Amino acid sequence: MKKILSVLAITVLINLFSLDLSAQMKEDSTMIKTIFDTELTEGASYEHLRQLCKDVGPRLSGSKGAEKAVEWGQKILSKIADTVWLQPVMVPHWVRGEAEQAEIRLSDGEVIPVQIAALGSSIGTGKEGITAEVVEVFELKDLEKMGEEKLKGKIVLYNRPMEPTLVNTFAAYSGCVDQRSSGARTAAPFGALAVLVRSMNLRDDNLPHTGVQRYDNSIKRIPAAAISTNGARLLSKKLRTDPSLKVHMKMSCKNLEDKLSYNVIADIKGSLYPDEIILVGGHLDSWDLGEGAHDDGAGTVHSIEVLLLMKVLGIQPKHTIRCVLYMNEENGPNGAIKYAAEAKEKKWKHVVAIESDRGGFTPRGFSFDGLPGVQESTLKQAEKWEELLNPYGLYHFDKGFGGVDIGLLKDQGIPLIGFVPDSQRYFDHHHASNDVFEAVNKRELELGSASITALVYLLDKYGLKTEPEN
Amino acid sequence: MKKILSVLAITVLINLFSLDLSAQMKEDSTMIKTIFDTELTEGASYEHLRQLCKDVGPRLSGSKGAEKAVEWGQKILSKIADTVWLQPVMVPHWVRGEAEQAEIRLSDGEVIPVQIAALGSSIGTGKEGITAEVVEVFELKDLEKMGEEKLKGKIVLYNRPMEPTLVNTFAAYSGCVDQRSSGARTAAPFGALAVLVRSMNLRDDNLPHTGVQRYDNSIKRIPAAAISTNGARLLSKKLRTDPSLKVHMKMSCKNLEDKLSYNVIADIKGSLYPDEIILVGGHLDSWDLGEGAHDDGAGTVHSIEVLLLMKVLGIQPKHTIRCVLYMNEENGPNGAIKYAAEAKEKKWKHVVAIESDRGGFTPRGFSFDGLPGVQESTLKQAEKWEELLNPYGLYHFDKGFGGVDIGLLKDQGIPLIGFVPDSQRYFDHHHASNDVFEAVNKRELELGSASITALVYLLDKYGLKTEPEN
Repeated sequence: MKKILSVLAITVLINLFSLDLSAQMKEDSTMIKTIFDTELTEGASYEHLRQLCKDVGPRLSGSKGAEKAVEWGQKILSKIADTVWLQPVMVPHWVRGEAEQAEIRLSDGEVIPVQIAALGSSIGTGKEGITAEVVEVFELKDLEKMGEEKLKGKIVLYNRPMEPTLVNTFAAYSGCVDQRSSGARTAAPFGALAVLVRSMNLRDDNLPHTGVQRYDNSIKRIPAAAISTNGARLLSKKLRTDPSLKVHMKMSCKNLEDKLSYNVIADIKGSLYPDEIILVGGHLDSWDLGEGAHDDGAGTVHSIEVLLLMKVLGIQPKHTIRCVLYMNEENGPNGAIKYAAEAKEKKWKHVVAIESDRGGFTPRGFSFDGLPGVQESTLKQAEKWEELLNPYGLYHFDKGFGGVDIGLLKDQGIPLIGFVPDSQRYFDHHHASNDVFEAVNKRELELGSASITALVYLLDKYGLKTEPEN
Repeated sequence: MKKILSVLAITVLINLFSLDLSAQMKEDSTMIKTIFDTELTEGASYEHLRQLCKDVGPRLSGSKGAEKAVEWGQKILSKIADTVWLQPVMVPHWVRGEAEQAEIRLSDGEVIPVQIAALGSSIGTGKEGITAEVVEVFELKDLEKMGEEKLKGKIVLYNRPMEPTLVNTFAAYSGCVDQRSSGARTAAPFGALAVLVRSMNLRDDNLPHTGVQRYDNSIKRIPAAAISTNGARLLSKKLRTDPSLKVHMKMSCKNLEDKLSYNVIADIKGSLYPDEIILVGGHLDSWDLGEGAHDDGAGTVHSIEVLLLMKVLGIQPKHTIRCVLYMNEENGPNGAIKYAAEAKEKKWKHVVAIESDRGGFTPRGFSFDGLPGVQESTLKQAEKWEELLNPYGLYHFDKGFGGVDIGLLKDQGIPLIGFVPDSQRYFDHHHASNDVFEAVNKRELELGSASITALVYLLDKYGLKTEPEN
């Protein structure tokens, strides 16, 4: 009899638990639908992006645009958050100068213009420009084999394309970007005069895609520029029949003194755990060629919108929800370094950090990052919410990169989550003059804001255990 | 001892079975990767779409463009398939005539032009056009309540917008399209002179989106036009302060005699089951305003590419793989009716029919359709392949609509599968002048071709049981 009673008691408990679970699921499902409905009907993401792209415009670190962006971010967030403050950070100040010029000069006298753009931190070519023969390579290590004999006095063309078979275009980018970041400092010791780097773009077009390159203080600095994919292909083709052709390139870019700038930080205070922070961020700076619409206007307005939606919907979070608009991701990341340092020094407790820096395309899911154990545990807990998020097209829950800015928090043991939108069109616009407001679809952008807000809602409600579960 | 041996035998069998399964899985996984890699590096989808959009152009049933499209499809497929033939079908021949004109004439004399486009099968307005007061409604049933007293001599503005909170934009379309298809025949009996229908578009823009509307032979025919979302909003706003404003509209569209046209059908013969058909199709006709790039140039080139990839990769199918380029989906679907009739008459055996008619956007998965039992059983079998297809972003496997053209095969018990790409941008272009080649992203289009080919590969290899499993 006692046993029967026990069994009955357990059965009742199980049923109660199931009911509880199902009621909770229903509540969450309703709240998530409300988040999406609100964003898709009254969301401010698109208007905020318009302001950032059109009223503020390009906003490379150190520029007037970056100053305006900080003011804009502070102003917008002041209307939403409980507290907003500026975290000072010194940033590089590189300027492009006049529009770059480049042309292929064939041996027979024909001249063909090609499109180039200086890479961030590159020095200029001087007023006369540089005119030299060109050596085409596909790997940094090719230069070692060639040596000074073949490279001295030449312009090096790095022409390894992005791998088109990788469905995740970020993986294809990672497989190429060493040419851009290290091309100049790898070629300089062999006496090369300058480098041209094939744009990190999967399409054939005439747009050079800029991006950061880094010098080594112990190595001579030589100019570095991106060349459009069409330009790189043409140059490569001409080299096959006319190996002694020359390229003439002229750039007036230069590095000025570092400038004071700011991360913009805004909190909605947690009701139960005000000292425990759920961070959501994107970067406020952008390259100078376009309007930084996808990179990272989208992540900026996504992050702002998380706070705005919680406020509009009257969601009082248990944990503090913090929006960080990082400065200087592109040619830094000094803002991220500063934030991580202060977090460590002041022992800020972060439950989790989320980053949106992959554009404003239709959401696919989230990638989970962190120290071993932390990463797995975060993913495992988030997988429980898949069913709630699937109806919004969020199916991708996997280990992966969190983001450049939150990445600096990894060694503090903080779980990191990267927002993953569709990646097919991202590199069509990345760091190029066509990364403009018009390239962002309103609904795709809004779905991103709602997706991240839904995740933040769940993370806040259920917390996150950072130890692996048994 | 005997029992132990049995257990051992079973264990060995299970292991062999697992090995077998895992080897098969690996083989399939390798083949699917090869399909995607080939398409993303050497695929012809994008060039075929360029030809169809730029060399052929708009191709409404009965037009010269439609004739050219049939020739083009036949020519392309003749280089790929074992047999290609044209299935004759009579199609409507409606012509738009001169560009439509419309303006709002306010009571104070101000005149504001608005953008309209005649709906397919609409009659014209006569040379003088129609000038009348406007009554705004949101539901077809509103007219019944209003009656002749309020509607006689008026132009009816149907202004129910697409519901933005539906993440699946096709559901939002379905919720509105009755205004377009039945608006004129619903308003005519109450003495309305013409109808304007708010474009089926989630964006605010100046593009009228055409589409088919249907008259009833027993009801007087009145002109019907789409008005852009901006135009509809403006007209609605002006009506609030100036209810006696008038709209003037002029259209010279007309219906001509039906014309002979063709479905283009191409087979790669099955090696084991030549009489069992796996059908993959899209529609060759398009509206006249744009180039029919997403609707349904994408589905057309997807379907061609399935055959091309199989040929290029040397995949010898067990079943006959049939590509059907349907004529007259837009204002028919006479091509689909003809195909289904001949299939029934000649007892063609279809294993499954797949349709691509939702644009050339990033693939999300497939929707499964068919008679009760058939639908569930097909979905259940396809779910086994999810793991193989997930790496390509294909996560959506659910019950849903197959497609307009294959839909006619449903009552023959044939399992139907609709290709499901991302739907966020589709209605930005649907039936409007911006449905052009440039609106299609090469990689997104190619991923669609590869996704459908991968599914066809699996369907052919494993067959499909059309009875529900036990």
